[in-house]
Amino acid sequence: MNYELYYWPTIQGRGEFVRLVLEEAGARYRDVARESGKGAGVAALMRFLHSRNIERPPFAPPFLKAGRLVIGQTANILQFLGSRHGLAPQDEGGRLWTHELQLTMADFLGEIHDTHHPVAAGLYYEDQKKEARRRAADFLKNRGPKFLGYFEQVLARNARGERYLAGAKLTYADLSMFQIMAGLNYAFPRAMAKAARKYRRLVALHGRVRERPRIAAYLASPRRIAFNEDGIFRHYPELDAR
Amino acid sequence: MNYELYYWPTIQGRGEFVRLVLEEAGARYRDVARESGKGAGVAALMRFLHSRNIERPPFAPPFLKAGRLVIGQTANILQFLGSRHGLAPQDEGGRLWTHELQLTMADFLGEIHDTHHPVAAGLYYEDQKKEARRRAADFLKNRGPKFLGYFEQVLARNARGERYLAGAKLTYADLSMFQIMAGLNYAFPRAMAKAARKYRRLVALHGRVRERPRIAAYLASPRRIAFNEDGIFRHYPELDAR
Repeated sequence: MNYELYYWPTIQGRGEFVRLVLEEAGARYRDVARESGKGAGVAALMRFLHSRNIERPPFAPPFLKAGRLVIGQTANILQFLGSRHGLAPQDEGGRLWTHELQLTMADFLGEIHDTHHPVAAGLYYEDQKKEARRRAADFLKNRGPKFLGYFEQVLARNARGERYLAGAKLTYADLSMFQIMAGLNYAFPRAMAKAARKYRRLVALHGRVRERPRIAAYLASPRRIAFNEDGIFRHYPELDAR
Repeated sequence: MNYELYYWPTIQGRGEFVRLVLEEAGARYRDVARESGKGAGVAALMRFLHSRNIERPPFAPPFLKAGRLVIGQTANILQFLGSRHGLAPQDEGGRLWTHELQLTMADFLGEIHDTHHPVAAGLYYEDQKKEARRRAADFLKNRGPKFLGYFEQVLARNARGERYLAGAKLTYADLSMFQIMAGLNYAFPRAMAKAARKYRRLVALHGRVRERPRIAAYLASPRRIAFNEDGIFRHYPELDAR
């Protein structure tokens, strides 16, 4: 199976969660909007979003073409890829639990995004800086620790050991948790450094995933886009802890 | 199968999306936190959230007990119930599409919630009223029409007819869309009245679901909690259109 991923070409964003799964799976895929030429580039992505002929239009990138299927919504794509590539448990309870964790990460990600865009995604950061300071302060004090503390507990309570979130093997949820930790380290380096000892299992998970051969190779390749201030995780020092 | 739903007893909130599916399915369920006595009430819910013995703790309500399974995250619960009770397509493409729509509704719902809580879910509305006015104005002008216009298009493009979002039969996504339309009508009556003709298929879907025998009976019963200003959909006249 050759996959086609459609996502904005200059940011990690939500597409990165899909890229990490494709890379760890060793899957063959095209990152369509990052290619140039006919049928590629952002134009190909936009054509797909705006075409009136598509019966099941995605609301937004990322979306994945897999043969005749077109699959949108990050967690939905990961659930699909996870079961196809051995990156999800096989039993029903394990599958549901992994997806539950992924959806909680999606909620977390929305709150992380809103630290710099509390008023409107369509406005510039500069136009909502004051509101962003208030929201980021609450995030660092309350919401961030609530989510991170939760995932730390999930690792601690895993009956199959604290190496992975669900069961004894790596799942797509671990890859996503890696990305969230990497992103938080980028966006809030002071707050994360201060809090590191509270989340030692998450810190270890981040390190463990980063060193997996395929992930390490990916991170060192030009396929990995650097974090930047157009993505979900943005480093604005004024929003970080003092 | 007897289900046990755990959700806050005084609001519709995210639990309502689960209640609607259980009601339409004619499933037997307990709404645990709304009952009183031993092993019931909010205490039972809190015990579950805070117990250190639960290997797979939900992050937040709603969660559903189904035999030995405990399932958290609304969209995850609906995917599970939908396939068990004939409220989701059976083919892989249809199942993925229905879940994709549900996850887009989850995103929409987060943005609806944030119209009255743009700074912090933990603060009172009164403490973020100014920010809420800005966010609600952007929501009514941009984000609301973007989401509603999308779902209207999904109905229009459905090759099996515009009665339902996915395929020729009712799915859990239609029940959720009903709830979102009902909630928006409650929260933003002026804006929704003005926009009604733009979303005639969604308005018709809302009416169609409301009149299904089991849903109509549920809505008329004391099991349906009224909308109120502690839920996701809140009627603050100052946030509605003029």
